Amino acid sequence: MPAPAPAASSLAASLEPLRRHLHTTRLLGSIHSCLYVDQNTVMPAAGAAWRGEQLALVARQLHERQSSGEWLELLAAAEAQSGPDAPPPLRRNLQLLRQQTERQVRLDPSLVGRLAQAQAHGYAVWQQAKAHDDFASFAPALRELVALRQEQARQLAEPRSPWETLAQGFEPDISRQRLQQLFDPLRQQLPALLERAAALPPLPAEDWDLAEPLQDQLSQQLLQEWGYDPSRCQRSRSPHPFSCTVGPADFRITTRVVPGLPFSSFLATAHEWGHSLYEQGLPRGDDHYFPWPLGEATSMGVHESQSLFFECRLARGAAFAARWYPRFRQALGRDPWGEAHRFWRALNPMRAGLTRVEADELSYCLHILLRYELELALLEGGMAVEELPEAWNRGMEQLLGLRPPTDRLGCLQDVHWSEGLFGYFPSYALGHLISAQLAEALEQQIGPIEAKVSAGAEAEILAWLAAQVWPLGRSVNGEQLVQQVSGRPLEAGPFLAYLETKLDALAG
Amino acid sequence: MPAPAPAASSLAASLEPLRRHLHTTRLLGSIHSCLYVDQNTVMPAAGAAWRGEQLALVARQLHERQSSGEWLELLAAAEAQSGPDAPPPLRRNLQLLRQQTERQVRLDPSLVGRLAQAQAHGYAVWQQAKAHDDFASFAPALRELVALRQEQARQLAEPRSPWETLAQGFEPDISRQRLQQLFDPLRQQLPALLERAAALPPLPAEDWDLAEPLQDQLSQQLLQEWGYDPSRCQRSRSPHPFSCTVGPADFRITTRVVPGLPFSSFLATAHEWGHSLYEQGLPRGDDHYFPWPLGEATSMGVHESQSLFFECRLARGAAFAARWYPRFRQALGRDPWGEAHRFWRALNPMRAGLTRVEADELSYCLHILLRYELELALLEGGMAVEELPEAWNRGMEQLLGLRPPTDRLGCLQDVHWSEGLFGYFPSYALGHLISAQLAEALEQQIGPIEAKVSAGAEAEILAWLAAQVWPLGRSVNGEQLVQQVSGRPLEAGPFLAYLETKLDALAG
Repeated sequence: MPAPAPAASSLAASLEPLRRHLHTTRLLGSIHSCLYVDQNTVMPAAGAAWRGEQLALVARQLHERQSSGEWLELLAAAEAQSGPDAPPPLRRNLQLLRQQTERQVRLDPSLVGRLAQAQAHGYAVWQQAKAHDDFASFAPALRELVALRQEQARQLAEPRSPWETLAQGFEPDISRQRLQQLFDPLRQQLPALLERAAALPPLPAEDWDLAEPLQDQLSQQLLQEWGYDPSRCQRSRSPHPFSCTVGPADFRITTRVVPGLPFSSFLATAHEWGHSLYEQGLPRGDDHYFPWPLGEATSMGVHESQSLFFECRLARGAAFAARWYPRFRQALGRDPWGEAHRFWRALNPMRAGLTRVEADELSYCLHILLRYELELALLEGGMAVEELPEAWNRGMEQLLGLRPPTDRLGCLQDVHWSEGLFGYFPSYALGHLISAQLAEALEQQIGPIEAKVSAGAEAEILAWLAAQVWPLGRSVNGEQLVQQVSGRPLEAGPFLAYLETKLDALAG
Repeated sequence: MPAPAPAASSLAASLEPLRRHLHTTRLLGSIHSCLYVDQNTVMPAAGAAWRGEQLALVARQLHERQSSGEWLELLAAAEAQSGPDAPPPLRRNLQLLRQQTERQVRLDPSLVGRLAQAQAHGYAVWQQAKAHDDFASFAPALRELVALRQEQARQLAEPRSPWETLAQGFEPDISRQRLQQLFDPLRQQLPALLERAAALPPLPAEDWDLAEPLQDQLSQQLLQEWGYDPSRCQRSRSPHPFSCTVGPADFRITTRVVPGLPFSSFLATAHEWGHSLYEQGLPRGDDHYFPWPLGEATSMGVHESQSLFFECRLARGAAFAARWYPRFRQALGRDPWGEAHRFWRALNPMRAGLTRVEADELSYCLHILLRYELELALLEGGMAVEELPEAWNRGMEQLLGLRPPTDRLGCLQDVHWSEGLFGYFPSYALGHLISAQLAEALEQQIGPIEAKVSAGAEAEILAWLAAQVWPLGRSVNGEQLVQQVSGRPLEAGPFLAYLETKLDALAG
């Protein structure tokens, strides 16, 4: 191997202080992740207040590291040393660091601390409020979170609306206008598709359930077939399933078992494993990339596209159902379906329900449209927190034709707002669109997904994603990724076309 | 309630900066605990290196906070404001902080970081070495840990031997000379008692085992009867059982299930719950005491006396066995014992074995004497790490008449040295002595333990400990605690007398 060119080598040496600083920042960030994972999987309830203080301390330290004079000097020095002929990855890294730094320095450190504590408090209060179906007990915490996030947007002072400003961290460069272009076709066509789905053969009567150990066993088998390595990833339980990266070789996924919803944990496992595979496939092969922004996920929409791909395109597909039908039959000890097609049908209710995380592909985006509208109303429209339950229920009726009987099944169902995560929800809908458009590209390049799954060749699909999608990291934003991989701009068409085809197949 | 005297109030106000500093230090320390708990219960193996860096970062921050100029100024100011008429708890707190600070400032920060990383590395390597019964692969890590601890003792430069210096953190004011006084009677009398135990009725044939869920169920029932509150404490599994405090209202205990040792997890639960009850009973009722040294455990020996009390005095007692005999019989679905006395006999093997954590009260201290000798040899006697396996096996033969067939059952069995915890082991033996002497005092004051247990009145025992022992915190050292509660100096007599009585009862 030839020695590196002297210029590159001296550039690397001069960047070493910056890299070391980022490395420690990443250590701190991953300590925050570990505290978060523990909080959501193991921590006893009475630990919440102290955990809030721990998280706030780490958040303050992170903010300080990312906005200190020492950091600003390191970054400026690196920028000065990296002229226009510097390697493009380095220039992109510095560009992203500059953008992130500008955002950090605009934030008052006390706001950062108050936010972290309000998040931990909000989460603890929300858990209780949901358990007791008591929105009023959660309202003050939510009101504080809205106010703090509005303050955050004000301090960031970007040429964007408050909601757009908060959404940048999840979906770089997103705008309300662009979302309207992408979401309008969904709002127009999904209700009609839902109506069409009502004419599908009826669902098998749901008179079956699976004991937790059997659900675990099936999920474990699924993970093993999809490359799960317990020495790099651990599974736990949490009230809301999630995936989290705690170190460059330390990944966690969680699921929950819901009585009466025997597919829930299995499909959530497929979903969270999609997230985790994506994280594991980001450019983090060696220590070099883990601390740099290029090694981060492109966007939450892209993240979600991967989890949805594994959940919907693979685990809810006909070929997959044919392969797993005998296994579920065997685990259950009887056969409530009678044939693979009816088992597949059971995996795809294609009908409106009250709960987002249990929703199928057809109704999912309608849940998101509702949340997006309500976020806009809370953050930019002057809607009072007290009005949320009724606004939620009204929106559910308009979009999905269902009125939640309780807030627990209504506006208290999701964890996100309890941690002040406004601006996140649209990424889920973008994930459906991106997944569909990437799936089209994948099929054009390596052939039909269903044929691969029939042949038990999901490894080929994983390999394609590992080559085309996962390593892009933050070299692009979500829409640029879609353009690069599929050759055209993101649009709702492929997703809606996929749904139509699937409805036809389910009817047949 | 009268208003506080102006002097006291202004003193409290002037101490507020110190208290805030300690509060943050405690937050950091408890983040370290959370990372440790996760490492030992959930973290996938490949996460070890990164976790080592995370722990090292927090350790460096802790060291910095406890030795920085800012801290030294805060402490000096507090000392200047607190004259001889300051409240005794404050003076004790400041005295302990001064002692701890003197120790911190003497340590080179780079040593602190290297130690933390060597500990995480040592732990990871030890796990593999133990799994593969391969001492040679662990030896380099152990050698580094010995060298770093020797260096630590050198830097601390106390008027004590290196081993004594390292032991101060576990057992304040302990000396080799005092340990010899306390341990000589054990060395002299335990082998004879072990011989006497050989004449006991033979143990029931161990032809039974319990499935994990049944072991869990029995342990859960035990905890519920002993005041377990899942909103304040969570249980997990780990390779080595432990108890850990993660926040003022956040406690964790772990156990393991060992195939073929169906009492192991149950007794470990009793043991770790004793540790946790003690931690929960320390003066931490409000936020005030958690950050202050007075709210910490008196010593590891006192800590261990509480876990041993619950394991040995309660869970291995005759009255307890009589109550649990029907429950174990029912869980097992048959009765390998035939009568409560034989069930009790099964809980008390009273015979030498190879493994410390599975040892009964009679042989336990002999395991400790071995480890204490070997630690002295490694740290002060010039023994090479390579000689450890043979020295261990020779010592086992001399003390317990058994030679381990493999290092896995020999010098690789314990976790402590893998984290460089030299000076800790004697606290286990002190725990037996302290437990026995405190039990004598308890019985003098509230009556025989066995009668309380027979009546299901363990709550009275817990209440006595909660009043007499747990709240002392670091107002005293271990020996002072025993003096204060029992009215005389610690000695081996009560423990040896208790063993003789128990052997008589087991024989009868």
